[in-house]
Amino acid sequence: MKNAIQQIRKFNQERDWNQFHSPENLAKSIAIEAGELLECFQWNNDYDKEAVCEELADVVNYCIIMADALDVDLEEIVLQKLEKNKKKYPVEKSKGNSKKYTEL
Amino acid sequence: MKNAIQQIRKFNQERDWNQFHSPENLAKSIAIEAGELLECFQWNNDYDKEAVCEELADVVNYCIIMADALDVDLEEIVLQKLEKNKKKYPVEKSKGNSKKYTEL
Amino acid sequence: MKNAIQQIRKFNQERDWNQFHSPENLAKSIAIEAGELLECFQWNNDYDKEAVCEELADVVNYCIIMADALDVDLEEIVLQKLEKNKKKYPVEKSKGNSKKYTEL
Amino acid sequence: MKNAIQQIRKFNQERDWNQFHSPENLAKSIAIEAGELLECFQWNNDYDKEAVCEELADVVNYCIIMADALDVDLEEIVLQKLEKNKKKYPVEKSKGNSKKYTEL
Repeated sequence: MKNAIQQIRKFNQERDWNQFHSPENLAKSIAIEAGELLECFQWNNDYDKEAVCEELADVVNYCIIMADALDVDLEEIVLQKLEKNKKKYPVEKSKGNSKKYTEL
Repeated sequence: MKNAIQQIRKFNQERDWNQFHSPENLAKSIAIEAGELLECFQWNNDYDKEAVCEELADVVNYCIIMADALDVDLEEIVLQKLEKNKKKYPVEKSKGNSKKYTEL
Repeated sequence: MKNAIQQIRKFNQERDWNQFHSPENLAKSIAIEAGELLECFQWNNDYDKEAVCEELADVVNYCIIMADALDVDLEEIVLQKLEKNKKKYPVEKSKGNSKKYTEL
Repeated sequence: MKNAIQQIRKFNQERDWNQFHSPENLAKSIAIEAGELLECFQWNNDYDKEAVCEELADVVNYCIIMADALDVDLEEIVLQKLEKNKKKYPVEKSKGNSKKYTEL
């Protein structure tokens, strides 16, 4: 993802857009794009794969910018959360089971 | 991000969770986690950075799984969307300007 | 709201749209419209009141349809939740305070 | 809905919460609650009706507060949007069809 991260930084610097990228505005942006991604599946499961990929890319684009705004490494926080999830969802309790950890 | 992607795959295989990971369910999951991320900023901007990082990680986790479910490379679709955005937002029109491309 | 509820029912019957209105599809629709409402505030607080009202109306429209799909009275469930909230947020603990009940 | 609207106003006045209810914060709150509503349907359609009603009530609660914050009548804006939708979705084109008006 390093290449994408660097190109996204360059894209935003060239447009002087970092002034808009407060964590709060980025949280709103991620929710907005997540809504557009969900719209691809609003009434049925017969989705347009190209449109889905574009909306998914928009979500990830803002996630990358948000990690920068928070001054954290995106992969690192994903790995840290995965360690937490391993404890919340032990294999023996959660195998083949979609229940939330609070109900396991 | 390769390490995180591989560990997420292993995590889900061990729990036999890929059966739940249809693109539609993942689009819902991304929107749900985006809502939790937004909750960190609900009433003010005085956010808890650790909580924000965990919620951001949850969004990215499902984005990684969704790329797998769609059988696409996440970095590649991000780069492709960036090329599109370069055309939608030419530097000279969008510099220092947060307007949507439809209003430029 | 009775007039709006009846007109919405008529609108959907005329279009034979109730077949699409499963509770799940309506939950997706509410989240999608909530994202569009949020988009009015994405980068700043300088919102277009007319656009905001239209997006808010879209959210409420689907909430009304969802109450019908669940066969419940919308006002009644709002009043029931308010009773619960009165207990979760006692005046003396929550006055002038935006904290979640779990942190009071 | 008049009774619910009045009781919600009293609830918020007693807690001095109107200071938090800017249109922007309410748009975030509606999106957050819409995410919680969607969570009831995250992995399957086997939903808990009581939980769904509570989350739907939370969405509508914030919609009612938002109409107050915007100083508009909620039913009126719903009826106005319905008039617009009648033109966007003429019966003869949209009957039995879930396509967006841009694709009709």
